[in-house]
Amino acid sequence: AAAAAAPQKPTGAKKAPKPKAVELKNAKGTRDFGPFEMRIREKVFQIITDTYKRHGAVQIDTPVFELKSLLLGQYGEDSKLIYDLADQGGEILALRYDLTVPFARYLAMNRNIKNIKRFQIAKVYRRDNPQIQRGRLREFYQCDFDIAGDFNAPMVPDAEVLSIADEALRKLELGPFTIKVNHRKLLTAALGMAGVPEDLHHTACSSIDKLDKQSKAEVQKELEQKGVTAEAVQKFYLMVDTVTQESSMQVALDKLRDILASTTGVDAEAAAAWTAPLEELVLLEKYLQALGVTSVKFELSLARGLDYYTGLIFEAVLEGALVGSIAGGGRYDNLVGKFSPRNNIPCVGFSLGVERIFSILEAKVKKNAEAELAATQVYVISNSKESITDRMAISSKLWAAGINTEFSHRANPKLLDQFGHCEKNGIPLAVIYGDAEKENKVIKIRNVSTRVETTVPFEDLVSELTKAIQSLEL
Amino acid sequence: AAAAAAPQKPTGAKKAPKPKAVELKNAKGTRDFGPFEMRIREKVFQIITDTYKRHGAVQIDTPVFELKSLLLGQYGEDSKLIYDLADQGGEILALRYDLTVPFARYLAMNRNIKNIKRFQIAKVYRRDNPQIQRGRLREFYQCDFDIAGDFNAPMVPDAEVLSIADEALRKLELGPFTIKVNHRKLLTAALGMAGVPEDLHHTACSSIDKLDKQSKAEVQKELEQKGVTAEAVQKFYLMVDTVTQESSMQVALDKLRDILASTTGVDAEAAAAWTAPLEELVLLEKYLQALGVTSVKFELSLARGLDYYTGLIFEAVLEGALVGSIAGGGRYDNLVGKFSPRNNIPCVGFSLGVERIFSILEAKVKKNAEAELAATQVYVISNSKESITDRMAISSKLWAAGINTEFSHRANPKLLDQFGHCEKNGIPLAVIYGDAEKENKVIKIRNVSTRVETTVPFEDLVSELTKAIQSLEL
Repeated sequence: AAAAAAPQKPTGAKKAPKPKAVELKNAKGTRDFGPFEMRIREKVFQIITDTYKRHGAVQIDTPVFELKSLLLGQYGEDSKLIYDLADQGGEILALRYDLTVPFARYLAMNRNIKNIKRFQIAKVYRRDNPQIQRGRLREFYQCDFDIAGDFNAPMVPDAEVLSIADEALRKLELGPFTIKVNHRKLLTAALGMAGVPEDLHHTACSSIDKLDKQSKAEVQKELEQKGVTAEAVQKFYLMVDTVTQESSMQVALDKLRDILASTTGVDAEAAAAWTAPLEELVLLEKYLQALGVTSVKFELSLARGLDYYTGLIFEAVLEGALVGSIAGGGRYDNLVGKFSPRNNIPCVGFSLGVERIFSILEAKVKKNAEAELAATQVYVISNSKESITDRMAISSKLWAAGINTEFSHRANPKLLDQFGHCEKNGIPLAVIYGDAEKENKVIKIRNVSTRVETTVPFEDLVSELTKAIQSLEL
Repeated sequence: AAAAAAPQKPTGAKKAPKPKAVELKNAKGTRDFGPFEMRIREKVFQIITDTYKRHGAVQIDTPVFELKSLLLGQYGEDSKLIYDLADQGGEILALRYDLTVPFARYLAMNRNIKNIKRFQIAKVYRRDNPQIQRGRLREFYQCDFDIAGDFNAPMVPDAEVLSIADEALRKLELGPFTIKVNHRKLLTAALGMAGVPEDLHHTACSSIDKLDKQSKAEVQKELEQKGVTAEAVQKFYLMVDTVTQESSMQVALDKLRDILASTTGVDAEAAAAWTAPLEELVLLEKYLQALGVTSVKFELSLARGLDYYTGLIFEAVLEGALVGSIAGGGRYDNLVGKFSPRNNIPCVGFSLGVERIFSILEAKVKKNAEAELAATQVYVISNSKESITDRMAISSKLWAAGINTEFSHRANPKLLDQFGHCEKNGIPLAVIYGDAEKENKVIKIRNVSTRVETTVPFEDLVSELTKAIQSLEL
């Protein structure tokens, strides 16, 4: 069959049929990462991993597909974006849509875990409209950090989660950013206080979530079509505006408290519903001050689409950038209990949208970095005939000493070509072992950029080269 | 909808229907990796990545699914194990079966790449019979290293690839191993010399590949059913045995040459077909000597199932272990050309079967390592009331200084509980900031295992703690 793969020769008078060409493309909405992109990805993952570990997190991993039944009912209207696997006579499976639901399954299955700070870096899948240039893909990485467990410490894990998101984004050096926060229960309470009937809260939230992309008039039209009165919309917009004008979260919360406390004509239940979530945000603000987090801003119109959030919700956006949010998360206290009713664990966490971060950094970093791609330190060179086994034996010694080494695979490469290879690929050192060196039991170490050569005894090669590498690193 | 997720309260006289429990399991043949397993996985990947980079390799990544048309016709009988995605109205997609075919597609699409040493570490998918305990899964990692390009240097990249496989397996410290090598063309030539008709070579190879699991008699029976004569089987077995008895590859090749040269009654074409591949292996053996690789053994019955191999083939097995092969690879000179006929690039490479390696190492390493899971260096402790914002502010300073730090999330944790947490979790240092320290503007640094405490000025905390961490590492 390997032979059949090769282009067929014409036989006889008639030409053989052309082999059918395979369509050469990536699946829609997916991309390859070449060496340049991978270097950026490696660095980004290292920064994120270091940040998460700095806060005591451990790593887990889950499979790329789950039983489809696990994913149903978790993602609201977006469930239509789930990739299904074909029914090939076994279980009904689907590709994971996020890392949160698999984490909740993991907790529900591992009941001995009562407390965990975990992170997971893995790809998730959504059959959405891709915009590859803007980092919006159908296959993309999420870098999740979550704290699960009952700490009897309201808003403390929430504050630490926000401080970790803030720290990771600062370390990534993407430019100034804002983390917009809200509280799911405060949002619905505010809708109630504005006069939106309770049965419309869920659908109203998904309209309000569009306020960062659409005009107020457009969103109002949509809300009215859903049955919300114009008066209720206006009342709610007044709250949103009052809050948005304040850059201090503390002042914004005080003003919102004043508005809500002075609202009349609502029933007692609605009037009571806003107090607890608002005071939670006041406590959060106090903790964020202690943690030195200054990027957080309260935004009452932030809704977030996922159904599983129950408390704090937040999203990070880069100032002046068009890439949308680069991180998002919140508290989800009932998701594990949904899978394991007698062993519920409250959770709070977030996900970094690293594809957008990759896009930003790829555009920033100049693509002339070819010379730095491979981390090769030494190139083993010879101009002797039949030198290949010598070059192999020397390379083998250097690999054993932990030195990143390459040699030309040609039998008789030219000296100039070998030097040129070093310069083109940014290899800093060469060792030269020709006929003269072999006869005198010595070997030359050459600094590729200065072209200075040092002759050393052959048996001292590893120690001398190690010194040369150390002096390069200074 | 978040509220709907919580267990429903009974309303009225009738009990509300129980919420339907979600089935809590992993998809068949897949597993989660907990923090303990992830630590092993991280170490294994680090060793492998370091080895690949030591030889000048760069990393790429490709999507988890490909157009199904790309995968068809590459995997022989095993194509039935491919996972298909459901047809949801777009392209016909399938999960990747290995990393080799996506790499060949990548080369075919990136025609500027004429030469590359690349590695890729990623999951692949096969609907095979899983045996999770033995590390045989439906979702599993492969760690691939390949050299693509025309080096005008027969067997040099082949030899380097073998030396890298050898080096990675040695660094992983799994115990003694053997790398069995063969040559696809030598195998088919030997079959021809034994009297197996050419049209049966492909199917005969898949029977012969079973000789490591089944008896010679069983394989002979299967071959005879396929139409191979008993005499041909016996002639071929004689060659296999002659070779197998020799631990020196050089001697084995010499003996096989003698047998093939003295074989009579075959046509001239068959008699000529074995010379070139046998001499390639002789050259390979010379290079392996220069590279200091001693784990390689020639085995004429090694066939390997994949259709795309065209030259060297090899498989690594642990001595005395039952896990099957832990690495495998070979030369595939026509695969890129199949996708891009005018831009063919010859390739040689291999894949490390790390799931089996994980299984071996997980069994080796004692699972008492909980204490070492998180890399937390410092725990911030207080016995003052309302100390949480102090503990947060101190932690924030330490994170900014790059120190891995945690604190209790409780408002008023007991001193003993906090010390106990450090001891249980192997956190080496604590800083203590109670009322007395606060008043005197000092802070205590405590070595958790020796219980020695040092009082330092509060403003010197970071520098003193950095010193304490450095002295721990000595």
